[in-house]
Amino acid sequence: MTEEIGVGMVGHAFMGAVHSHAWRSVHRFFDVPLTPRLAALGGRDAVRAKEAADKYGWAAVETDWRALVARDDVQLVDVCTPGDTHAEIALAALAAGKHVLCEKPLANSVAEAEEMAAAASAAAERGVRSMVAFNYRRVPALALARRLVAEGRIGDVRHVRAVYLQDWLSDPESPMTWRLRREKAGSGALGDLGAHIVDAAQFVTGGLITGVSATTETFVKERPDGAGGRDEVTVDDAAVFLARFDSGALGTFEATRFALGRKNAMRLEVNGSRGSLAFDFESMNELSVFSSDDGPESGFRRVLVTEADHPYVGAWWPPGHLLGYEHTFTHEVADLLTAISEGVDPAPSFADGLRVQRVLAAVEDSAGHGSAWTTIGDTR
Amino acid sequence: MTEEIGVGMVGHAFMGAVHSHAWRSVHRFFDVPLTPRLAALGGRDAVRAKEAADKYGWAAVETDWRALVARDDVQLVDVCTPGDTHAEIALAALAAGKHVLCEKPLANSVAEAEEMAAAASAAAERGVRSMVAFNYRRVPALALARRLVAEGRIGDVRHVRAVYLQDWLSDPESPMTWRLRREKAGSGALGDLGAHIVDAAQFVTGGLITGVSATTETFVKERPDGAGGRDEVTVDDAAVFLARFDSGALGTFEATRFALGRKNAMRLEVNGSRGSLAFDFESMNELSVFSSDDGPESGFRRVLVTEADHPYVGAWWPPGHLLGYEHTFTHEVADLLTAISEGVDPAPSFADGLRVQRVLAAVEDSAGHGSAWTTIGDTR
Amino acid sequence: MTEEIGVGMVGHAFMGAVHSHAWRSVHRFFDVPLTPRLAALGGRDAVRAKEAADKYGWAAVETDWRALVARDDVQLVDVCTPGDTHAEIALAALAAGKHVLCEKPLANSVAEAEEMAAAASAAAERGVRSMVAFNYRRVPALALARRLVAEGRIGDVRHVRAVYLQDWLSDPESPMTWRLRREKAGSGALGDLGAHIVDAAQFVTGGLITGVSATTETFVKERPDGAGGRDEVTVDDAAVFLARFDSGALGTFEATRFALGRKNAMRLEVNGSRGSLAFDFESMNELSVFSSDDGPESGFRRVLVTEADHPYVGAWWPPGHLLGYEHTFTHEVADLLTAISEGVDPAPSFADGLRVQRVLAAVEDSAGHGSAWTTIGDTR
Amino acid sequence: MTEEIGVGMVGHAFMGAVHSHAWRSVHRFFDVPLTPRLAALGGRDAVRAKEAADKYGWAAVETDWRALVARDDVQLVDVCTPGDTHAEIALAALAAGKHVLCEKPLANSVAEAEEMAAAASAAAERGVRSMVAFNYRRVPALALARRLVAEGRIGDVRHVRAVYLQDWLSDPESPMTWRLRREKAGSGALGDLGAHIVDAAQFVTGGLITGVSATTETFVKERPDGAGGRDEVTVDDAAVFLARFDSGALGTFEATRFALGRKNAMRLEVNGSRGSLAFDFESMNELSVFSSDDGPESGFRRVLVTEADHPYVGAWWPPGHLLGYEHTFTHEVADLLTAISEGVDPAPSFADGLRVQRVLAAVEDSAGHGSAWTTIGDTR
Repeated sequence: MTEEIGVGMVGHAFMGAVHSHAWRSVHRFFDVPLTPRLAALGGRDAVRAKEAADKYGWAAVETDWRALVARDDVQLVDVCTPGDTHAEIALAALAAGKHVLCEKPLANSVAEAEEMAAAASAAAERGVRSMVAFNYRRVPALALARRLVAEGRIGDVRHVRAVYLQDWLSDPESPMTWRLRREKAGSGALGDLGAHIVDAAQFVTGGLITGVSATTETFVKERPDGAGGRDEVTVDDAAVFLARFDSGALGTFEATRFALGRKNAMRLEVNGSRGSLAFDFESMNELSVFSSDDGPESGFRRVLVTEADHPYVGAWWPPGHLLGYEHTFTHEVADLLTAISEGVDPAPSFADGLRVQRVLAAVEDSAGHGSAWTTIGDTR
Repeated sequence: MTEEIGVGMVGHAFMGAVHSHAWRSVHRFFDVPLTPRLAALGGRDAVRAKEAADKYGWAAVETDWRALVARDDVQLVDVCTPGDTHAEIALAALAAGKHVLCEKPLANSVAEAEEMAAAASAAAERGVRSMVAFNYRRVPALALARRLVAEGRIGDVRHVRAVYLQDWLSDPESPMTWRLRREKAGSGALGDLGAHIVDAAQFVTGGLITGVSATTETFVKERPDGAGGRDEVTVDDAAVFLARFDSGALGTFEATRFALGRKNAMRLEVNGSRGSLAFDFESMNELSVFSSDDGPESGFRRVLVTEADHPYVGAWWPPGHLLGYEHTFTHEVADLLTAISEGVDPAPSFADGLRVQRVLAAVEDSAGHGSAWTTIGDTR
Repeated sequence: MTEEIGVGMVGHAFMGAVHSHAWRSVHRFFDVPLTPRLAALGGRDAVRAKEAADKYGWAAVETDWRALVARDDVQLVDVCTPGDTHAEIALAALAAGKHVLCEKPLANSVAEAEEMAAAASAAAERGVRSMVAFNYRRVPALALARRLVAEGRIGDVRHVRAVYLQDWLSDPESPMTWRLRREKAGSGALGDLGAHIVDAAQFVTGGLITGVSATTETFVKERPDGAGGRDEVTVDDAAVFLARFDSGALGTFEATRFALGRKNAMRLEVNGSRGSLAFDFESMNELSVFSSDDGPESGFRRVLVTEADHPYVGAWWPPGHLLGYEHTFTHEVADLLTAISEGVDPAPSFADGLRVQRVLAAVEDSAGHGSAWTTIGDTR
Repeated sequence: MTEEIGVGMVGHAFMGAVHSHAWRSVHRFFDVPLTPRLAALGGRDAVRAKEAADKYGWAAVETDWRALVARDDVQLVDVCTPGDTHAEIALAALAAGKHVLCEKPLANSVAEAEEMAAAASAAAERGVRSMVAFNYRRVPALALARRLVAEGRIGDVRHVRAVYLQDWLSDPESPMTWRLRREKAGSGALGDLGAHIVDAAQFVTGGLITGVSATTETFVKERPDGAGGRDEVTVDDAAVFLARFDSGALGTFEATRFALGRKNAMRLEVNGSRGSLAFDFESMNELSVFSSDDGPESGFRRVLVTEADHPYVGAWWPPGHLLGYEHTFTHEVADLLTAISEGVDPAPSFADGLRVQRVLAAVEDSAGHGSAWTTIGDTR
């Protein structure tokens, strides 16, 4: 048994459930240098928080996140709340010398994200680590994709094609939620889904987006408020944009919650001068790989990313035994615990989260100005 | 045997070969009211034209297209030349009272296309018919897609996702051709591939594109000229654009010759309020159909579009016996011959070709002005 | 224009239509040394035969196949009738010194097939050629598969998995046809579909089946006779069998007309010591290829078999432009005409057809004897 | 927190790791009436067992399984050892009044399985429950498949096509293991992989196999023993067989470890009179469903089995967020705990395991007698 690290998690909805699983399980599969102790769960409603703590295995409950941050038995704060509270919780935790894992998108505005990135950078000087939870970087197939690009197997990247398609808002009678309120969620499909594909595209290709042209749409303007009336939707239902990367690659991006029949189709295609890659999260254990070296019988290889020498896979099952969604979070906390122990900065950093935030802001800016090309400053 | 119609075809490269096959074969499979007679083939080089005529089954050869248009035994002129000569040949043929089938894109400029559409409209008054050869409308799967949208099975269209991916220019040493010269081809991937997906998207959804935001790229600026030097590429290698339809749908489009491993991936996805469609020309006998009526076991249906009640299929083989690329041209001329015989205007008309041309022009315009949103006027 | 060869075809149903297309078109695409002339079409009903001849482009009609065989302008007889007349027509044609193309299965019994193979062998001595029409050998993907096995790319073949799935009899109310009468068709799914996969498996792997264990089933015993009554089905609806090859490979085979939703799923999988292959006729332009040399990113390659250096493809369109079902017949007659001109025996020969027939007979024999292992004698 | 149940597990290799995860996690996701306490882990090597116990979260270690069975804090014994010890451990546990979960195949012989089934039946009278761990029944897609058949959605089942393909023995230099020794493993691919597809086919269709015709093969007779020599392989590398079900359906089965490129392709296809199903474990979150009611746009639906109303899925993540291999074990123990608490017999029972064992024995018997049809007695 390795040394323990006390974790305090704020928020216990969907993200809280899957993060809890990762904290409980990581040391059962990975040889992590720190063993997480599920010290305290934060939630405003004491009864519901207690239920969640019992269900998910947390030792204690705090109804005030400040109290959770202040606990002596908490050395790491995991922020699983909606985006409007990320900044204050994360900043307080860093200030208190606690390592931070923060859900994505990092913040609801560039200003907040800048403050967080600066604080994270300062904290790192003191050995306090922070990570933004772009868990899709930990899909073995996407980690393998990055490896292939980094090794030069794809050559110079020319095209990126990224979509994140869901359909849960397709029905106009689907009710209002906090995710459709700008003040809570920051944006709609853009921040929720677009953030993932922006980060994934940059992660896999190793390039940074330098400019965008965008438009957004809200197909259904009002939704049932649960009390017989209708509430205004104040975020985008869909966002589409063109992008250029510092590598010279061209990109197209689409994030939508209105692609009927697509449940979680986070898709990424990359075409380079030597090869191509294609990925779809609905088949997350597969990576399609094309190599121009393959000769007359070339074709996209359907690589089942379940071999022991594929990223993260060695910790799990034999070839052909698939992994699922929650494994990405287990990989994430494994990497975070290792980075903390080794005293290095984990990736994606808050600075990486800020870069994504700047792209999202540029998308909204372009969409508000007739799709005019909008550059993203200070990208490295 | 039905009444014959004399066909004269100008050009005998790739398009000439496949058009010849259609003219030779159409009455063997379809009960067309007119039987084509392959009267004359036009080509500037007498020797090569004669070889092609023998190979493809044309009775005579003309080295001057004007002579071909003037022949008494030619009632229909099929224009298979590069885009820079479409306008003059088609205009002359219409003026001579000959029906015209013209390869796409209709012309190399909006001005030419406008003149052609006006001439076609005037000719129609005199019973002379014209059609632009967007053959992908005659892929049974895409014709079925249009039928499903028209029947309301997809509901209101919200998203269109269209790409046309090829890879034959991916290698920088791939040599210069007329297709990479602006004065000959008009544009690059945009006019060659983009024209197809613009027409197909409008055809399938029944909507018209009203505005675009675009950018284009030439990845390889110079190519081997075959004489030891290098020639400047003056067209786009790739074009990407966002679009809005008059129906309110959002679209993303991409045309490229640099998508390594994609040989002819003309893909179209449509998401509506009741259902979705997905098509890939590399699997051209299939249409993926999602219906929100399908209940708890819903999923994209892989419809093998080879049933007798699917468009065009009844003329061919039993279910599961696939059709190929050239069948789309056979379907095209079957429809054209029927329209001529029935005295109605065939689709797609030159006016439809003009609409596509305007979209292409708007794409280039937007790309030249910082991707600024650019509207397409006079779309209906 | 090369020298002509007069073709006489007996039968003008489905197979007649597709063969006609091949004879009409082959020299338009392939540089064949003989140009087919569609001399005469044989059919018992003069009116229907004349209609078919006009439709398909045959110059004359004969209501007696003997007269057709005897015509001076016929040098090649194409037998497209049901299996019960293959033997007498083919034997008469060979005796008359006419080359023969005979539809599969070669005959309705081993005895007939033996007589035909002997006659073909004797005729070959006199320069008269014969071929049995296993057209699936001419699917480019399957021809490529054979090439890969022959080159050693798959290594020693260990497993063959072959199914041919259709569903047109799944409905018990589907009416009686000659294909369900033993005296006409010889057998049911076994001879119609099983013959194809037996030939294809032997063709691709280069091995011969040495023994089988089998069982067959007739799910629907009686079918509507079209006159209000019901007729007895006297053939198998489905046949399944295990097989061993002289190479040591193990095989499983299934032929059925009751696989609901499978329209023409002729599937072949081969696993060897160095690689694997998978094919499905419903995606006939694709071959899946796995190579153990591909290293950590190995996976089945989806090879789009539309490259100029793939078998037969150079005669057609650019990469990614698909071929269809009838192309296999065009390839077949191209090969036959070349063999005739070069004075060599074409493949598959009647001897190859006999080998398949012996396997089918062994399947029925085993099925009739408690699935007992049944060897196939004289296989090379 | 519900009442606890003490679990003792014997064996800590691959199966032990995945069972441990299930015991640790089940109550975090499912509202199970009993909460497992990981009381003791059994392993002969004290050091390795202790390491495993720490890694997997077991409170104690026993080096003698008899001591583990005898522990007061163990109410349920989980047997994860090779097949040669299943019988004695399970019988002892049942005799001691402990519930039993036993890995598959139930035993290495029919005689052992009969004794186990009899003991389980007797124990059930005393409220002691037993289950054999055919975990693939708990793949949501296969549970959904069974539901669809049971609801009549597929109609009468006519064809079953089941293969389980792996490739880890394809290389002749792959070393000897206990799985290749008859005295330890009972059989090779047959018992390891064939057992799964026999159970799954019976589970999904609701039919029982009544007879088989089979053959088996050992492609590589000797393998490296790790000490410079070679050891004899005494089990099958592959087994293929035909089967008939009491429902009248025909089946084909294949189990092999030599299908290069197939990592864990447990595939099941079912064709009925109203619909069809297809499943592949390498895409375990998908079920292909064909319904003859779907009309002219019918086709296999790719159902992503990740909806809340699909079996087991409600406990996990939103639609489109995939589950993996180990989830099947979590589902398994959830069902077992529920059955124990409710006082009902869980499925699959030892009697179900015995039925599978009888099929496996019949396969070996048939293979040893010239593939003669071999009936399976006493199937209900």
